[in-house]
Amino acid sequence: MRIGVVAPARPVSREGSLRMAAFMALTYPQHEIVFHPQCYLEAGHFAGTDAQRAAAFLEFANDPAFDAIWFARGGYGSNRILEAVMPKLGPAANHKTYIGFSDMGFLLGALYARRIGRVAHGAMASSIGKNDDGTAAGWVLGWLIDGDKRGLEPGLADGRPAAAFNLSILASLIGTKYLPDLTDHVLYIEEVDEPLYRIDRMLFQMAHATQLKGIAGIRLGQVTAVKDNGEAEGNYSFGETIDQIILRWCAEMGVPYLGRAEIGHVELNRVVPFGLI
Amino acid sequence: MRIGVVAPARPVSREGSLRMAAFMALTYPQHEIVFHPQCYLEAGHFAGTDAQRAAAFLEFANDPAFDAIWFARGGYGSNRILEAVMPKLGPAANHKTYIGFSDMGFLLGALYARRIGRVAHGAMASSIGKNDDGTAAGWVLGWLIDGDKRGLEPGLADGRPAAAFNLSILASLIGTKYLPDLTDHVLYIEEVDEPLYRIDRMLFQMAHATQLKGIAGIRLGQVTAVKDNGEAEGNYSFGETIDQIILRWCAEMGVPYLGRAEIGHVELNRVVPFGLI
Repeated sequence: MRIGVVAPARPVSREGSLRMAAFMALTYPQHEIVFHPQCYLEAGHFAGTDAQRAAAFLEFANDPAFDAIWFARGGYGSNRILEAVMPKLGPAANHKTYIGFSDMGFLLGALYARRIGRVAHGAMASSIGKNDDGTAAGWVLGWLIDGDKRGLEPGLADGRPAAAFNLSILASLIGTKYLPDLTDHVLYIEEVDEPLYRIDRMLFQMAHATQLKGIAGIRLGQVTAVKDNGEAEGNYSFGETIDQIILRWCAEMGVPYLGRAEIGHVELNRVVPFGLI
Repeated sequence: MRIGVVAPARPVSREGSLRMAAFMALTYPQHEIVFHPQCYLEAGHFAGTDAQRAAAFLEFANDPAFDAIWFARGGYGSNRILEAVMPKLGPAANHKTYIGFSDMGFLLGALYARRIGRVAHGAMASSIGKNDDGTAAGWVLGWLIDGDKRGLEPGLADGRPAAAFNLSILASLIGTKYLPDLTDHVLYIEEVDEPLYRIDRMLFQMAHATQLKGIAGIRLGQVTAVKDNGEAEGNYSFGETIDQIILRWCAEMGVPYLGRAEIGHVELNRVVPFGLI
């Protein structure tokens, strides 16, 4: 298998890509991972300009020599290339798997909405840190290369179609043509670095999104690094826990809350293929 | 005129309401302002529970003895009472003006979507601070009581229907039934306390919102207290100014950018009645 890596949002370091290449050489030496040079570009916040990021994604996605696109890193920006890239994906783009999460949800959502390729939530290609043993990256590679299901989120055993999003990205897709039809899907969500009032506000939007009326249920992944809500300043707490919050909005949405899930901005971030596995 | 004040989001202090009552007594002694006791309740983040905030709003909105509802304060939470209050508004609610901004955009949007009463963006009833001379509060009162147009946003002179929202609130309404039909309206937006990448992401959503396809143009109010984008940590800047950002998204949206506007989280926050003035 030949895996191409591009960075539609923020750049990666050479060190990060070398760690991943080394991990790949150790675990799957007969397979190849190729980091596009665009991954290292820097243009303000982004891994190169919008045009450079769009061109790199199109180059690899439309290259029949790649079997999969593994996104390098999130951090914001993949939404800015959707208008440029989505109409230019050709037949080779359809015979590929796309995997990543967080900000990459913009691309995963848009691809899934158009039934282009196979799409999955999973750890990023720059996820191996100095103190990361590569468990989640191994789950991605095992699933991509061997179809190994041991890295899949356990809830998928229910046999229903699924999709997974960072809540901020899901909320940003609502009301646009890039949010896929998730009728009868179990929706997995996770969040990082947000105060509870914003999580609550995003769940309001999810609960009232016309496009999401037909979903089968919600699973909540890890909600990590919850930011201060203004409590420090005003000497009060939000007044609800994350579990109370998700239960209340699922009730208002009229959709079953199916419990927690093993996804998120954590080392043990499981693979969630979109649709049926 | 009799003006009722309720707090659908965060509470106000007795001091704040006394300042406003004093200002009203000085400037419009023949008119009355009534702060509902709910304004001072505290329940975690909120000015009372969802049920208490909903009940206070319904009590004043459905009371024919009030001519206007002036929202006390924003800060998050008015979205949580929409499901409870919107179906219970009666005939008296229709013969009223509702004014406020920021988080109150949830209610203003929902009211305007259902053509209930007259709706306007304007300073809050707790906006007079220790060092605030009450200019914006005076604009609200002058417009409410005397129909004085001197406090209106100057762009309204174009004669087109308008609506004004905090960008975060607008983004949160997109895709829901609470976003009003703004076809042919000029949309005024403002923002506070957000990093540029989030402003960019919200403008992406606005630009691609199916519901907003028919708007006549965009005006950008004050964008204040822009938060650090991660630059401090990563030693980079976002790479675009707010003016570049708004121009790029208006272009992608295919909607004219009509320039800046005098609204926002600032002392000189002008009145923008929704619809035609």
